[in-house]
Amino acid sequence: MHELAGIIKQAIEQEANGDVTSLIENLSPAELARVLEALQSPLRLPLWAQVPTAQKGEVLLELHGDLLTTLIENTSEDELVDSLSAIQMDELADLDEYLPISVVNAMVAAMDVQRRQRYAAVKLYPDDTAGGLMDIDATAVRADVSLKAVLRYLRKLRQKEGELPEHLDSLMAVDRNNKFLGMLPLSNLVSYDLQTTVGEALVDCVTSIKPLTSAKEVARVFEDQDLLSAPVLDDNGVLLGRITVDDVIDVMRDQAERNFLGRAGLEKHPDMFAPVLNSSLKRAVWLGINLITAFAAAWVIGLFEASIEKVVALAILMPVVASMGGVTGSQTLTLVTRGIALEQIGSSNVWRLLSQELVIGSINGLFWGAVVAGIAIVWFGDWTLGLIFAMALVVVILTGAVSGTLIPLGLKHLGIDPALAGGVVLTTATDMVGFFAFLGLATLVLI
Amino acid sequence: MHELAGIIKQAIEQEANGDVTSLIENLSPAELARVLEALQSPLRLPLWAQVPTAQKGEVLLELHGDLLTTLIENTSEDELVDSLSAIQMDELADLDEYLPISVVNAMVAAMDVQRRQRYAAVKLYPDDTAGGLMDIDATAVRADVSLKAVLRYLRKLRQKEGELPEHLDSLMAVDRNNKFLGMLPLSNLVSYDLQTTVGEALVDCVTSIKPLTSAKEVARVFEDQDLLSAPVLDDNGVLLGRITVDDVIDVMRDQAERNFLGRAGLEKHPDMFAPVLNSSLKRAVWLGINLITAFAAAWVIGLFEASIEKVVALAILMPVVASMGGVTGSQTLTLVTRGIALEQIGSSNVWRLLSQELVIGSINGLFWGAVVAGIAIVWFGDWTLGLIFAMALVVVILTGAVSGTLIPLGLKHLGIDPALAGGVVLTTATDMVGFFAFLGLATLVLI
Repeated sequence: MHELAGIIKQAIEQEANGDVTSLIENLSPAELARVLEALQSPLRLPLWAQVPTAQKGEVLLELHGDLLTTLIENTSEDELVDSLSAIQMDELADLDEYLPISVVNAMVAAMDVQRRQRYAAVKLYPDDTAGGLMDIDATAVRADVSLKAVLRYLRKLRQKEGELPEHLDSLMAVDRNNKFLGMLPLSNLVSYDLQTTVGEALVDCVTSIKPLTSAKEVARVFEDQDLLSAPVLDDNGVLLGRITVDDVIDVMRDQAERNFLGRAGLEKHPDMFAPVLNSSLKRAVWLGINLITAFAAAWVIGLFEASIEKVVALAILMPVVASMGGVTGSQTLTLVTRGIALEQIGSSNVWRLLSQELVIGSINGLFWGAVVAGIAIVWFGDWTLGLIFAMALVVVILTGAVSGTLIPLGLKHLGIDPALAGGVVLTTATDMVGFFAFLGLATLVLI
Repeated sequence: MHELAGIIKQAIEQEANGDVTSLIENLSPAELARVLEALQSPLRLPLWAQVPTAQKGEVLLELHGDLLTTLIENTSEDELVDSLSAIQMDELADLDEYLPISVVNAMVAAMDVQRRQRYAAVKLYPDDTAGGLMDIDATAVRADVSLKAVLRYLRKLRQKEGELPEHLDSLMAVDRNNKFLGMLPLSNLVSYDLQTTVGEALVDCVTSIKPLTSAKEVARVFEDQDLLSAPVLDDNGVLLGRITVDDVIDVMRDQAERNFLGRAGLEKHPDMFAPVLNSSLKRAVWLGINLITAFAAAWVIGLFEASIEKVVALAILMPVVASMGGVTGSQTLTLVTRGIALEQIGSSNVWRLLSQELVIGSINGLFWGAVVAGIAIVWFGDWTLGLIFAMALVVVILTGAVSGTLIPLGLKHLGIDPALAGGVVLTTATDMVGFFAFLGLATLVLI
């Protein structure tokens, strides 16, 4: 992508618009979005000007944050209305908070009654719920008609609408009250005898997704059951809409991004080439939080100023203790955070897990304690120091194991995502305990 | 899942087999796999014994590592052959390295010619390539026939085979030499006029996936183009097989897992309830690697033993310097690692990126430098110490920015995944430079 971005950059700088047009001609909207992100800010608007109106809507859907806002601001309202007229209702609902209200109004005004109803239905639910992901299903069929009739209906629908909905892999079957009965995969529609009724060709669908089911849960259901699409039903089993796997893939990618970036205190969809002042500010917050925890550790060290003055080796070795505690803790933390996300950890097995992590911690603490004691004895020629070092290592590794298990569970209980905040809280704990154990033991024994 | 695991655990302990059977009756294979993982080892085999043979194959596909091996060892060969007879060829190829060779042989012997050919074709390619993901396409159609003929063919195929392949959303159209011409979505098949030929109802497919394209790249193509399935073609455009979106979702999940776990030195698919000695050993390696980097930092501190002896405040403040460097570095590292994975960073923009990170680092370094200087001056009443502290902070934050940019690019160049190894290398760099800058400056000025 960056090679292509490099070539496009050159073409823009040489103002060779024809070249730019042909370079982007065959790119998918997502690929175009990536090229825009890989370009430095001053080159983005000239490229945007070359994107055909018909594609702009789909490209905007793939963008986020400041870049999205900038591009929208630099597109005329008429062009926005044109470029967005073809996108799906659930997608429009994701984007509309970024659009000028006049554009949204113009688009709603231009919708036919059916589209307007579908838009209103999607807007009822938050973006990160099944209701926000679903599209209203325009292709539900009655269970008592024959497949032949369904095929005739679909042919008519296509003649009327131009094409069938995207990613249509199955039809939803309903009764006369729009109550969901099952899914009719197109592969059944094309392979069963034409006289069969829809009801006879249905596959059962054990999955029940409610409009307020979280997007995360929807993704899990799709993964677990290898679905291509699934119905969204209200409490009475009435069909509200359909979620397709492409929406779910977006949810999965978002979640993975969030976990990956969140641990470094970065927000989702960062813009590598955002204005630096902007980026500096966003990152400063995380540095500030970290500074507080670092000074908490420094404060613990400060308590033992007198001891360090007498035995400087303590200052040399103390980062080793803290770091081993941090590593042990982050291993357990990662494992437990994953277990929580997969819903494999709960009251039925948390004690078992904790005791097991303590055993693992003890084994590794004793082993590495012996190793570091050996190193310290050789380095400083001081048996007592070596022994204290080893004991502190055991203490901090066990602290890591306990914090790594309990911190994510505690955060989860408080409604905070452990994947985001777990690391900082853990490091604060292991650093403080590590320094305290090592310097405290040394003060008791050596000083 | 853990609540269910808890209930199942009770039922197993009470030896209420009937209850167990009814509890697991409606679970999908993936859900069953998760319950098995959430159970402690001694309860897993009793549950496994209650899983119907027909489901065991699909469940095994969702499992990994030691648990997978244990369950296979505790299933009779006949039952394995029975339970695996219905799974897809690409899936069998993923699993067969774990199976006893006699089971694999029995399965191959029981295959008809067509299935045996498909199995052989998949085995040609590594698991993490398009060739390893694809299934041989049994439903290719010729472009010159009418849709009516296709429908007739599919109905016959179903009568013969019992059902059509899973996740069939489109048919691949080929010429008489099996050269790929385009995809016929089932939604076109059911909505176009019956007299239309396949060739007229095709959608173009700009995606060209080769059998040796990496699974990661395949996932990106699916994401970017919102595909449900895609053809795998050889260099001459001949159709080799089809990849479906459910395989791609598995790849995405695996990748996300690997990134999440790899940073803590954990392997993919960890078993929370594996025997502790096993787990201890696996984690010990990462602790050992970390110990080396921690001692490297300790060695740097050791160089300045005399200075610390004179000014103990140095020992108190030095972890703050190292930690701020580490945080800055890991922010940049995360951003750059992501950019590399998305192919947005390359020679065309790496210098621009580096200079930008340096500007962001300078802004944050100066700001937080002033803050920490203030704290140090108030704490220790020493203006010079405060100034040195601030300068060291600027140095280490800039080091973090540079290392965060160059380390992942360097690792990538060496063929090492930056998402896995980046963190350790970075911390080593920022720790050593941080301690050296702070203690070195202090030695020059204060001592």
